[in-house]
Amino acid sequence: MASDHPMQLGMVGLGRMGANLVRRLMRDGHRCVVHDISESAVKTLEGEGALGAASLPDFVAKLEKPRAIWLMLPAGVVQTTLDQLAGLLDPGDAVIDGGNSYYRDDMARAKQLAARNLHYLDCGTSGGVWGLERGYCLMIGGEEEPVRRLDPIFRSIAPGVGSAEPTPSRTRPGGTAPEGYLHCGPSGAGHFVKMVHNGVEYGMMAAIAEGLSIIRHANVGETARPLDAETAPMRDPDAYRFDIDVAEVAEVWRRGSVVGSWLVDLMADALARSPRLDDFAGRVSDSGEGRWTVLAAVDEGVPAPVITAALTDRFQSQALGELAHKALSAMRSEFGGHAEKKG
Amino acid sequence: MASDHPMQLGMVGLGRMGANLVRRLMRDGHRCVVHDISESAVKTLEGEGALGAASLPDFVAKLEKPRAIWLMLPAGVVQTTLDQLAGLLDPGDAVIDGGNSYYRDDMARAKQLAARNLHYLDCGTSGGVWGLERGYCLMIGGEEEPVRRLDPIFRSIAPGVGSAEPTPSRTRPGGTAPEGYLHCGPSGAGHFVKMVHNGVEYGMMAAIAEGLSIIRHANVGETARPLDAETAPMRDPDAYRFDIDVAEVAEVWRRGSVVGSWLVDLMADALARSPRLDDFAGRVSDSGEGRWTVLAAVDEGVPAPVITAALTDRFQSQALGELAHKALSAMRSEFGGHAEKKG
Amino acid sequence: MASDHPMQLGMVGLGRMGANLVRRLMRDGHRCVVHDISESAVKTLEGEGALGAASLPDFVAKLEKPRAIWLMLPAGVVQTTLDQLAGLLDPGDAVIDGGNSYYRDDMARAKQLAARNLHYLDCGTSGGVWGLERGYCLMIGGEEEPVRRLDPIFRSIAPGVGSAEPTPSRTRPGGTAPEGYLHCGPSGAGHFVKMVHNGVEYGMMAAIAEGLSIIRHANVGETARPLDAETAPMRDPDAYRFDIDVAEVAEVWRRGSVVGSWLVDLMADALARSPRLDDFAGRVSDSGEGRWTVLAAVDEGVPAPVITAALTDRFQSQALGELAHKALSAMRSEFGGHAEKKG
Amino acid sequence: MASDHPMQLGMVGLGRMGANLVRRLMRDGHRCVVHDISESAVKTLEGEGALGAASLPDFVAKLEKPRAIWLMLPAGVVQTTLDQLAGLLDPGDAVIDGGNSYYRDDMARAKQLAARNLHYLDCGTSGGVWGLERGYCLMIGGEEEPVRRLDPIFRSIAPGVGSAEPTPSRTRPGGTAPEGYLHCGPSGAGHFVKMVHNGVEYGMMAAIAEGLSIIRHANVGETARPLDAETAPMRDPDAYRFDIDVAEVAEVWRRGSVVGSWLVDLMADALARSPRLDDFAGRVSDSGEGRWTVLAAVDEGVPAPVITAALTDRFQSQALGELAHKALSAMRSEFGGHAEKKG
Repeated sequence: MASDHPMQLGMVGLGRMGANLVRRLMRDGHRCVVHDISESAVKTLEGEGALGAASLPDFVAKLEKPRAIWLMLPAGVVQTTLDQLAGLLDPGDAVIDGGNSYYRDDMARAKQLAARNLHYLDCGTSGGVWGLERGYCLMIGGEEEPVRRLDPIFRSIAPGVGSAEPTPSRTRPGGTAPEGYLHCGPSGAGHFVKMVHNGVEYGMMAAIAEGLSIIRHANVGETARPLDAETAPMRDPDAYRFDIDVAEVAEVWRRGSVVGSWLVDLMADALARSPRLDDFAGRVSDSGEGRWTVLAAVDEGVPAPVITAALTDRFQSQALGELAHKALSAMRSEFGGHAEKKG
Repeated sequence: MASDHPMQLGMVGLGRMGANLVRRLMRDGHRCVVHDISESAVKTLEGEGALGAASLPDFVAKLEKPRAIWLMLPAGVVQTTLDQLAGLLDPGDAVIDGGNSYYRDDMARAKQLAARNLHYLDCGTSGGVWGLERGYCLMIGGEEEPVRRLDPIFRSIAPGVGSAEPTPSRTRPGGTAPEGYLHCGPSGAGHFVKMVHNGVEYGMMAAIAEGLSIIRHANVGETARPLDAETAPMRDPDAYRFDIDVAEVAEVWRRGSVVGSWLVDLMADALARSPRLDDFAGRVSDSGEGRWTVLAAVDEGVPAPVITAALTDRFQSQALGELAHKALSAMRSEFGGHAEKKG
Repeated sequence: MASDHPMQLGMVGLGRMGANLVRRLMRDGHRCVVHDISESAVKTLEGEGALGAASLPDFVAKLEKPRAIWLMLPAGVVQTTLDQLAGLLDPGDAVIDGGNSYYRDDMARAKQLAARNLHYLDCGTSGGVWGLERGYCLMIGGEEEPVRRLDPIFRSIAPGVGSAEPTPSRTRPGGTAPEGYLHCGPSGAGHFVKMVHNGVEYGMMAAIAEGLSIIRHANVGETARPLDAETAPMRDPDAYRFDIDVAEVAEVWRRGSVVGSWLVDLMADALARSPRLDDFAGRVSDSGEGRWTVLAAVDEGVPAPVITAALTDRFQSQALGELAHKALSAMRSEFGGHAEKKG
Repeated sequence: MASDHPMQLGMVGLGRMGANLVRRLMRDGHRCVVHDISESAVKTLEGEGALGAASLPDFVAKLEKPRAIWLMLPAGVVQTTLDQLAGLLDPGDAVIDGGNSYYRDDMARAKQLAARNLHYLDCGTSGGVWGLERGYCLMIGGEEEPVRRLDPIFRSIAPGVGSAEPTPSRTRPGGTAPEGYLHCGPSGAGHFVKMVHNGVEYGMMAAIAEGLSIIRHANVGETARPLDAETAPMRDPDAYRFDIDVAEVAEVWRRGSVVGSWLVDLMADALARSPRLDDFAGRVSDSGEGRWTVLAAVDEGVPAPVITAALTDRFQSQALGELAHKALSAMRSEFGGHAEKKG
């Protein structure tokens, strides 16, 4: 289904997300100019109908004014790319950072570009590897005018109103939120909302993971525990003799339950593929947004015990708590003569 | 669409959930005998096609053997009802407890009924006030035979396979989980899984609530803070000057985002009705399952920091931490001469 | 300094704590009859002036009526010992459980013994391997009469009023708390208070351990971090270039600081011995009381976020969160194609 | 007992802590020049032997070179005072910030002063209102030379080696930590350690407060609970019928127990004065250091679940979680038709 207002967009950064954004836009009739440091990435999309550019100057030259340029880059190279672009663009051009930049960087970058009469939009983009089909949820920050101008682009990238049932109590007419994209506020507001979105994601993921872990271990009463002073005795082993199939539990929770969610869908899929999750060692990365969310909660003085616990849990999975744990064992040894138990 | 195997079911307890279960079953062609201490509740369902019973003996008499009886009762009256029923039933009859009983009670009750050759199934039922239309997610514990016998009942209550996309990696043939109901294990296993489900629900709810709270308070930089030793200074007020519409944020997260979930749908609905949630004071009840989930995690020795934090947060909302907070203020007064700040 | 009221006490269980209790009592002029399944443990104390007993009947025979018997046994053998003793004792005799029994067991045991007109006292005993010199803090539950009768015993075991400065605001005359022992209430109250004491201990220990860990890692800005999407970038490496000697920090905190405590004293001692704590792997045991404290907080509905977090942290140190962490990695892989990073 | 090396020190800021530092120094034979915006504060200390100064220029003029100036000021006025002083001082002079500045500010200020060949030391000072008698624990950051030069000052302020038993395993000769003061590292290191010290303090305080709260509520089984779906039922009321005197518990924990600490001493004192702590409403302030400690833990990626939970708990006590709690009630209402329970 073609967009009512086909536009041209330039994309810098053709990793999985950048490439899929281009595909989704072209499906809707938009024209895309693409650039990446990888020539083959450019080639691939040329083969699908995009106009490739070999260099940033070439890329800029191929775009019609006022230009619209989307950056889909690792956080570490956004600033340098922006610095280069700034010298090549003309007043009125707009740059959208669709990656996971820190919203405070957005605020500084928007000022930097405004000094040259360039527009800068920060656009948090959620949807992961599934976005090509499902569409991407967009959380946008920046000035009104360029956000309005680029509306057809955002509309094509977003999932669209049909992708979920209408919210029954919603009476306010219009607005783009039901389409799956939202202008959240001035510069930084988009990535602020996306940052907190990821914090929420951490909390929801942890809740699901903990629940399944409690269910999997519902058979601990079957295991004999050592009878020593270093082991908490189990009072009711008979209450913990269930062998429950967590893969089926995740599957059943997908329908009709209060916890039904895309994350439960994904969990069910992962467990369908590998019921014991043996492909993973349990080292859970955190990539910045969770930390920033907690920093924001602390700065605001807002209690966020669940999101914070979810972040701390990731640190634990990365074994970053080792020194503290050694200190605990050392204190126990000091006051009680407790020797550490071997794993 | 009528069930392939219409059956008869007796329902005791015609509150919202019990009544809706009966309606959902009758829509599918099952016959229902209904009983409640409220005569009008019985009348209402008689008007919709059910067979009413004025007393438990009358109720039992109207059921064909082997009887199938579903209890949808407040936790506090399950045991007494069961005690009465046990004297009226015949070997081979089955009782399903569809409420929120503690799984350890199920284990005792199953034994109690087994002594009379009666079957007892525990069936965690999720779906709330929306289950009539969406179907209910069922988590079942108990013996194989009665679970199999009652399959048409469970199938009609559950949402059905069409209510969600298939799980892509799922290859195992059959199983009822994709229908939205699951035999989780022996007596107690159903309510165990439902209990943990509710623990997960606590965690997911808290993650969403905290996230929206952090977004709502993204404007704290606008508020002047008192410059006294009792108030943490704000270092970067300019980073917190966003007025973000949380109702629209909840709406936009419904489509394409990683946090997409039924709970976000409901949150968006509540905010559409009342953007400041002024109908609520913020006293969040907990009704048992969250506590039991934490007890299980502790008994198992499984870390559940997020679910636990969500439970603790509810206790905080109920102002149950007052004494501890007074003790903190008292210590601060002792060592630093700090007077308590007025709200 | 001899007790004003020398008594006779029987001690069953001559591990480190039992033996040291006997020594501390004998120093104060009390006479002790001792029994243990280890003959050599009995011999050792005979060599120091105690009267040894080879069997429980022999032990009971050697005690003057009304007998006073202190059990200092692993939790797992208290009940069987008590069952044996019950058949050997006479009305009016008193048994004190000085170990770490669960207070609910105390309540049952007190009833069991009361049926034979025997007294049962539960006595939480804190002091660890240092109690011989420092004295033990005693938290006692049970009937008034035997507690009063055994006062000279408790007084000799406790540290005594001179072991700390008087509490300035204390005006209430008398009471034994300033001596370091307290009759907390009826059966179970002693071990209840001791249980919570240990919960507090978990929280204080964790606070100290975490603090030292944050200080030790104050040099993370010196370490280059991989620039990939799986690693949270460090914004202010220059703010984290401190190499701080945590052993000296623990030592300096011992004097004049708000965190001054016996646990900080012990931490300083452990770090003086081994600045990197290389003797420990960081697997921190939990031996029941912390779990029970959290169960009590949940049952009471009282927020105890810090004590609960400290318990959860121990579970993490025991790697009991592995499945949950694998589930998190699995979800990340599903939605973002994130591969797990190797440690 | 006079210092072996009496020196002159200028003190700016004569609040309780500044004034007591001056008194403690003069007791040891040091000469103090004092300044404050309050004339009466200056007068009071003049009456005790200090040399008063009416203005900063007057203050600077009265100090011998190289000058040593201690600032004991609210965080909000340190920078302006420093800016004024910088213009009045001569190369080689040293300024010590003894307040609770953020360590990152110290790093910037040290650079600012170094540009004029002035020294800047950051000195975390713990001890509260009791420091005059007990001495203050000092955590110092900055260059070696001025720290060494000012050693007699630090030594007089600190509690001294006799204020605690020696650490048994300590073999390293020398060092000032056993005196109660420590040069922790370069600029910022002193306030960094003090910041974390306060984080530890938050955690320890919360552990004690939670424990006493669990003990106080050990009588919840005595209270009838409403039998409704919004209230978690109590399974074992008989296990919670203890009325325990928490004031006496705090007192007994002061001697011989593992949790023995200055904070428990203070808690016992507060409870001796007011057993129900009725002077307090339970609104617990946080004044920056706890927040900064959590930010540091997050930046470092170090798990600090207990300190973080203690900070979050203070936010809860300040009712900053209201919006999140309203959101939880709203979701419960949406999915379950649960009405909020009145307090």
